[in-house]
Amino acid sequence: MSTLTLRKVAIDTYRENVAYLHRDCKLYRSEGFQALNKIEIHSLDGAVSIIAVLNVVDDDCITKPDELGLCEQAFRQMGGEAGVAVNIAHARLPASLKAVHRKISGDNLGLEDYQGIARDIASNRYSKIEMAAFLVACSQTGLERDEVLYLTKAMIETGKRLNWGEPLVVDKHCIGGIPGNRTTMLIVPIVAAHGMLIPKTSSRAITSPAGTADTMEVLARVELSPHELHEIVRAQRACLAWGGTAELAPVDDILIAVERPLSMDSPGQMVASILSKKLAAGATHLIIDIPIGATAKISNRSRALALRRLFEYVGDHLGLSIEVVLTDGRQPVGRGIGPALESRDVMQVLNNDPAAPLDLREKSLQLAGRIIEFDPDVRGGQGYVIARDILESGRALAKMQAIVDAQGRNPNPPQIGHFCHDVTATDSGQVTSIDNLQLAHIARLAGAPMDKGAGVDLHKKLGDPVEVGETLFSIYAEFPADFEFARESAEQNSGFTTGNAVVDESP
Amino acid sequence: MSTLTLRKVAIDTYRENVAYLHRDCKLYRSEGFQALNKIEIHSLDGAVSIIAVLNVVDDDCITKPDELGLCEQAFRQMGGEAGVAVNIAHARLPASLKAVHRKISGDNLGLEDYQGIARDIASNRYSKIEMAAFLVACSQTGLERDEVLYLTKAMIETGKRLNWGEPLVVDKHCIGGIPGNRTTMLIVPIVAAHGMLIPKTSSRAITSPAGTADTMEVLARVELSPHELHEIVRAQRACLAWGGTAELAPVDDILIAVERPLSMDSPGQMVASILSKKLAAGATHLIIDIPIGATAKISNRSRALALRRLFEYVGDHLGLSIEVVLTDGRQPVGRGIGPALESRDVMQVLNNDPAAPLDLREKSLQLAGRIIEFDPDVRGGQGYVIARDILESGRALAKMQAIVDAQGRNPNPPQIGHFCHDVTATDSGQVTSIDNLQLAHIARLAGAPMDKGAGVDLHKKLGDPVEVGETLFSIYAEFPADFEFARESAEQNSGFTTGNAVVDESP
Repeated sequence: MSTLTLRKVAIDTYRENVAYLHRDCKLYRSEGFQALNKIEIHSLDGAVSIIAVLNVVDDDCITKPDELGLCEQAFRQMGGEAGVAVNIAHARLPASLKAVHRKISGDNLGLEDYQGIARDIASNRYSKIEMAAFLVACSQTGLERDEVLYLTKAMIETGKRLNWGEPLVVDKHCIGGIPGNRTTMLIVPIVAAHGMLIPKTSSRAITSPAGTADTMEVLARVELSPHELHEIVRAQRACLAWGGTAELAPVDDILIAVERPLSMDSPGQMVASILSKKLAAGATHLIIDIPIGATAKISNRSRALALRRLFEYVGDHLGLSIEVVLTDGRQPVGRGIGPALESRDVMQVLNNDPAAPLDLREKSLQLAGRIIEFDPDVRGGQGYVIARDILESGRALAKMQAIVDAQGRNPNPPQIGHFCHDVTATDSGQVTSIDNLQLAHIARLAGAPMDKGAGVDLHKKLGDPVEVGETLFSIYAEFPADFEFARESAEQNSGFTTGNAVVDESP
Repeated sequence: MSTLTLRKVAIDTYRENVAYLHRDCKLYRSEGFQALNKIEIHSLDGAVSIIAVLNVVDDDCITKPDELGLCEQAFRQMGGEAGVAVNIAHARLPASLKAVHRKISGDNLGLEDYQGIARDIASNRYSKIEMAAFLVACSQTGLERDEVLYLTKAMIETGKRLNWGEPLVVDKHCIGGIPGNRTTMLIVPIVAAHGMLIPKTSSRAITSPAGTADTMEVLARVELSPHELHEIVRAQRACLAWGGTAELAPVDDILIAVERPLSMDSPGQMVASILSKKLAAGATHLIIDIPIGATAKISNRSRALALRRLFEYVGDHLGLSIEVVLTDGRQPVGRGIGPALESRDVMQVLNNDPAAPLDLREKSLQLAGRIIEFDPDVRGGQGYVIARDILESGRALAKMQAIVDAQGRNPNPPQIGHFCHDVTATDSGQVTSIDNLQLAHIARLAGAPMDKGAGVDLHKKLGDPVEVGETLFSIYAEFPADFEFARESAEQNSGFTTGNAVVDESP
């Protein structure tokens, strides 16, 4: 162990800790460090300790020979105070890597293995490539259902866990894959207006053009401290927050930094990621929406049923009442794809606007109805009617406005992108299929979710009649380069097919 | 596409291209770049183009808002000229990533898939996590033997390929896993002294305490340009060079930057990596040494035979005559483990020093003999005697000296580390097992291969009698921290067991 002066290197490395050591630093040679080695950095009192990947610097203006430079996030983790003395040493490999190698060679892992892996990841001991190795190993041979249970447990244990002190804390989740499927922002105000407790935390988009957190952010602040989240839920019986800042199952948020660039999303990881977040958030009853469709994440009923069994198995063993609903995933839900466009759809439904997309409204009422039936005072089958009354009476809208104000209304909500291009039909007939993946791809190229105003707005849906030259959808973007990428892609493949009759594959 | 001024950021990121863009750079927002995005950088004439991962900078002294900073290796790739204007744009995902995802989901890939992957990796289009995903996917479900053939072909095609214009170009390779197994440095001079052409390129250690390149570097320069390598081989009929600089199958060297921190080494990758290097180096005849032992890479005969078939299958389809030799891998070969210690063993054998380790001498003569029998003028069975005569007559030593001088003798050869600790026997009896992995681990903790003088020197081998307190081996290190790690590890587990009789498992 040897002492250096801490210095902030103003570089944003996005979730990977990087330390900068000057090539002439006496420790660099005397301890035989190498670029890409992982080093452990300790405060002198030993209270704080982090792991970072080493970059070697040849420029005093970045880091002097007697300094240890840290990238912004690592600097924060060490307390954010420049000039203090720190010790550095070779980092030992995270002990849990042995388990990852066993998984790679095909073994199943036990609870202790997953607990070790989760602990090491939570304390930033894993490098990006080690996380990638773990994710690929899990996704490839897949996880036994007990492994999914262990991983879920381990992810919950590494973070805070909320306890609402009530017997009925409801939540909902969609496994995703369907663009524009923004039912959560309708279900939460409806269910909360019925008086149920629904402290909803959502993640941002991983591979999709918008997550609920991205879309809600158009209307209000979503990055709430655990304390803020509590206060809002106590007052409103609900919230629509981003899960990341709440320190619930943080391992999941760290893994996302690798899942995203790899666009990985395996069943076991999915179930563990979803259920760990829900349980950490204190949910007791949960509705899960599994859309089925040729271009949905789940393409047929039998795979959907297998996934449902996995959810139920893990839920039952962790004391969570789960109802899994299989829904129609043959096309996007609503019209907008992208944060600003999707929040527009949501507000149209809440306002009972005649122009509101009916499919979004209907699906939200169905799911809200199922949740309302978790209420022991509600007869089976009555949920839908209660949900519809709440929506039509304007109580859902009022509740949404209250939630938005409580979280902090966005003073200047992002507008829909000012670059606009209409994609038109090349032949006439009936819309026979809409490719969820291609439309999500176009919306992402246009800049969603990072550019909130970017995305796609659908003018036609399955079964609609179309004439040559009619607009199928519009592309919106905020920046020229993105706009061009999206247009090119849409010209190569609009994602729409037209013919004579829709094949009905709805579940 | 938009223009910025190129600037070198003096940071050594070790094989990953990193670009630095100021947060206030107009392009950063106007094009919607994000930290961790991959960007493409083009020279104005479009002649040079590289991919880099984006880091966002908040300090003008690292990168100004109108500049594009590049880490040292990326800066070199762009021509190494500061102040020139470059264009940057969002990088599109490498097309071959689709194939990697298919492999992750269990498909077998075709020749075109592997060619695409190799091309993209060779042109630095893969990030580290994408390479990690590819390696884990290959190692986990494994590769069909045709896939290994395709991968080998693809790796050869992405680099230079040498042609020696002779019908007989011999080479040898050990799959590794046995510490101290430095036969190559004896076989090459013996075989070359017999007049055979053996242009030997080796890699550096991946997970072991020393590779042939690391050890030869103790005596001479091993980083030769393709031109130098040719000249030396023409004059000496042999060389002992590092393969990395020769631009032979460069993909392999790029992957090693990820395999090393992950300590990955799967059969398919192994065969493709070895045979692509040999074929690119122009070999026509190849001996492969597969050591078998409880703590060797290959623990039993049946796995060794399966691996032999894989080598033979790929070799046959690529016109390479392969002979696979199964050897005793129950313990380290020779006494030294670590570059300086192993080169000492090698020179003792070449000098016919009575103190030379007999097992290293004997194994080297056996393998050299098999290679000499590739010579059509040599009767089967005569190779060993010829090899021994060459060694005992001093012609092998003379040839080695000539090779060392040709490559450039190391003016100040590294000495054995000055920190020394003896590990002693805790009970008496006979040495019944020596754990290759633990001794390699101790030698690596001591600093090998990066610190050439570091490592382990064995005083006892299998079957030797030991008394309590007798030295089993000595640990040598150059730096205090490493020395402590190695001592601790050896105290926890010396890797030696003593008992009454050795179980003979030799092949």
